[in-house]
Amino acid sequence: MKEPLRITVTGAAGQIGYAMLFRIAAGEMLGIDQPIILQLLEIPPAMNALDGVVMELQDCAFPLLRRVVPTSQPEEAFSGADFVLLVGARPRGPGMERKDLLEANGAIFTGQGKAINDYASKSVKVLVVGNPANTNCLIAAHNARDLPPEQFSSMTILDHNRATALLAERTSVHIDAVENLAVWGNHSATMFPELLSATVGGTPALELVDFEWYRDQFIPTVQQRGAEIIRARGSSSAASAANAAIEHMRLWSLGTNTVTSMGTVSRGDYDIAEGIVYSFPVSCSGGKIEIDKTRTLDDFCVDRLRLTEKELLEERDAIKHLL
Amino acid sequence: MKEPLRITVTGAAGQIGYAMLFRIAAGEMLGIDQPIILQLLEIPPAMNALDGVVMELQDCAFPLLRRVVPTSQPEEAFSGADFVLLVGARPRGPGMERKDLLEANGAIFTGQGKAINDYASKSVKVLVVGNPANTNCLIAAHNARDLPPEQFSSMTILDHNRATALLAERTSVHIDAVENLAVWGNHSATMFPELLSATVGGTPALELVDFEWYRDQFIPTVQQRGAEIIRARGSSSAASAANAAIEHMRLWSLGTNTVTSMGTVSRGDYDIAEGIVYSFPVSCSGGKIEIDKTRTLDDFCVDRLRLTEKELLEERDAIKHLL
Repeated sequence: MKEPLRITVTGAAGQIGYAMLFRIAAGEMLGIDQPIILQLLEIPPAMNALDGVVMELQDCAFPLLRRVVPTSQPEEAFSGADFVLLVGARPRGPGMERKDLLEANGAIFTGQGKAINDYASKSVKVLVVGNPANTNCLIAAHNARDLPPEQFSSMTILDHNRATALLAERTSVHIDAVENLAVWGNHSATMFPELLSATVGGTPALELVDFEWYRDQFIPTVQQRGAEIIRARGSSSAASAANAAIEHMRLWSLGTNTVTSMGTVSRGDYDIAEGIVYSFPVSCSGGKIEIDKTRTLDDFCVDRLRLTEKELLEERDAIKHLL
Repeated sequence: MKEPLRITVTGAAGQIGYAMLFRIAAGEMLGIDQPIILQLLEIPPAMNALDGVVMELQDCAFPLLRRVVPTSQPEEAFSGADFVLLVGARPRGPGMERKDLLEANGAIFTGQGKAINDYASKSVKVLVVGNPANTNCLIAAHNARDLPPEQFSSMTILDHNRATALLAERTSVHIDAVENLAVWGNHSATMFPELLSATVGGTPALELVDFEWYRDQFIPTVQQRGAEIIRARGSSSAASAANAAIEHMRLWSLGTNTVTSMGTVSRGDYDIAEGIVYSFPVSCSGGKIEIDKTRTLDDFCVDRLRLTEKELLEERDAIKHLL
């Protein structure tokens, strides 16, 4: 049997955490031959609820789950961590401006970046789920001074999957038939789900759908899907976000040839400003995220890439004192 | 690729349903080579929330998920179903007596039993999760006149897992070391988690723990675990109940040599009254639940078996007009 790996989840008693932990413990993230230790971080007021979650994890008698450590201390939560899922974040409160939100989360992700740097495994992989995810990821990566920024990634697979499902529905195929779709930029309303390189059963997607549908229906629907789900459910997407986080970590860790979308630090590919955390089309191999650098983009795409880049640069400006 | 199987879940927008559907769609119940169709039943006021759940299922782009059918019509929900998880039930409201609760649920499970009889696959497997689960299961099985009662089962694997985890913790072993534990009777405060036949790493459990601990700590803790979790979380066990339901269906469908606990119709084994739905130690093979008939029980056990049997007979009396 393999040695157990340590997985840290922050905001572990929240809705996304609750939807995620049981699937991780069942082996869906790292495989059914990989024992794990769960290290669960919560803020002190949520520790009681977290105790309930820990009891429920025990009550599942998961064969792979070696130990569960509930804590409100970052140093304990990140200690020796091989994988970190930063799920907990300050949500936007009433009357809160975007700037206030960036600031409030900046404090959290500064501290967590430092604690990851000091206490986690040197080869830790960190996924940021809590919004604003790209900029929170940037802050955490910057504050983990001794770790390469490539070990930090932000989540856009949820958007990638939403786009894939929507295109599959529109073209009446199973989702398996959709390939090479990508979501670019910020996980926000400026994100750009690109179909120029996408294929459906091998045929270019843009030969199968109208450009007007693409521009006026597809892109805004993907961008605003989160709000649509809140309207229907009365609460935000938890299970689908948890699913995407598990998939992100599984692909990153175990590899994939199929193109997906992940936020990663820009090194200037596609002329995106260096240093910001930007979602690119990627594949994964040997524990590394590799940007697909082979795409030819048209003016429509480039405009969209710039728009979401601009938003990320503004976000970076707003928190530049934290970098 | 195999033909898709149809899985019906009732109360699909509730907390247990929400914790269950994404794991089923990921392949945790029937395996990662088995395509599925989810048929989701809710009451009309919950259809909006159910639409949100369906959107989130789409947003996961699950390769195995062929179709999702949300409906408030039992005939549509149960149509051609290979597996049915009856999760939705009327919870106990303020001032509601146990008899009122049995009555309110009796109406639901009478109708669902009839609809399963008329619309589901003739080889359907039905698991009752909604409480009072044993008696709800009895009602549903009775009202499915053309189906053998053995195709209906009630859930006690959650209790089995709770007992396993507690014994493993007490004896400082991994849960894999615990074998032949069983939970008998009703899924209620009278259930009997039995250790007489249980072993820990091959040693009889009762050689490793005090009888006083067994009687005064272990049994009541397992019986009251649900209430303990409500106190901590502020809401009832959802993810661990969902996990148990998935495990129940997986073991029933794919088989297991290991002893677990399931509610099934009594045929008089261990002198339990015929016809009631009672939890026994079981294994599963060829799609059938097989009671372990080899156990020798002492007077302590027999008293406990009688106590929980008595409660189930009283429950049956309270709803006998529905049988």
